[in-house]
Amino acid sequence: MYGRTGKIIAQPGQRDALVKVLLRAAEALGEAEGCYLYVVGQVPDETDMIWITEVWRSAADHRASLDLEAIQALIRDGRPLIASMTESYEVIPVGGKGLP
Amino acid sequence: MYGRTGKIIAQPGQRDALVKVLLRAAEALGEAEGCYLYVVGQVPDETDMIWITEVWRSAADHRASLDLEAIQALIRDGRPLIASMTESYEVIPVGGKGLP
Repeated sequence: MYGRTGKIIAQPGQRDALVKVLLRAAEALGEAEGCYLYVVGQVPDETDMIWITEVWRSAADHRASLDLEAIQALIRDGRPLIASMTESYEVIPVGGKGLP
Repeated sequence: MYGRTGKIIAQPGQRDALVKVLLRAAEALGEAEGCYLYVVGQVPDETDMIWITEVWRSAADHRASLDLEAIQALIRDGRPLIASMTESYEVIPVGGKGLP
């Protein structure tokens, strides 16, 4: 398994627009091979912050998803709404609840 | 929904022991009301680091789980293996893939 978790800071006032793009990405990933989890979260009291957690069958499945046309289009839509991606970690899931 | 994501640093050499305790916790949470996700992850090249991501139906469900006897016992087992919990965030999931 392969995972990523990371913080995205939206441009001021653009968090909700960026959340919409990311939820469309999650929907597009419904068809992606090996995508187990793609959770979009907000952080209380941090009005521009978004937190994404992804779990994939493999790093290769994650990389391949970035080439999907729908995901490429959403990256283009989302990029202007992002101020910074300040923290991002590779986290290799070893088990737990809610995974296949 | 309610979520938490956070980094735990194990005492030197104790990461694998702590992972085992956390996976037992994930198993115990199989019976907990409203626990959707409890993923235990490791971070490449960070030999003492563990990353936990949890998603719950509500903050109240999360709080209630801390009173379960099995979880209390696992907190007692795990605490001596923990060096520090350096970062922890409340992340309120707004949607995505892999959630109920």
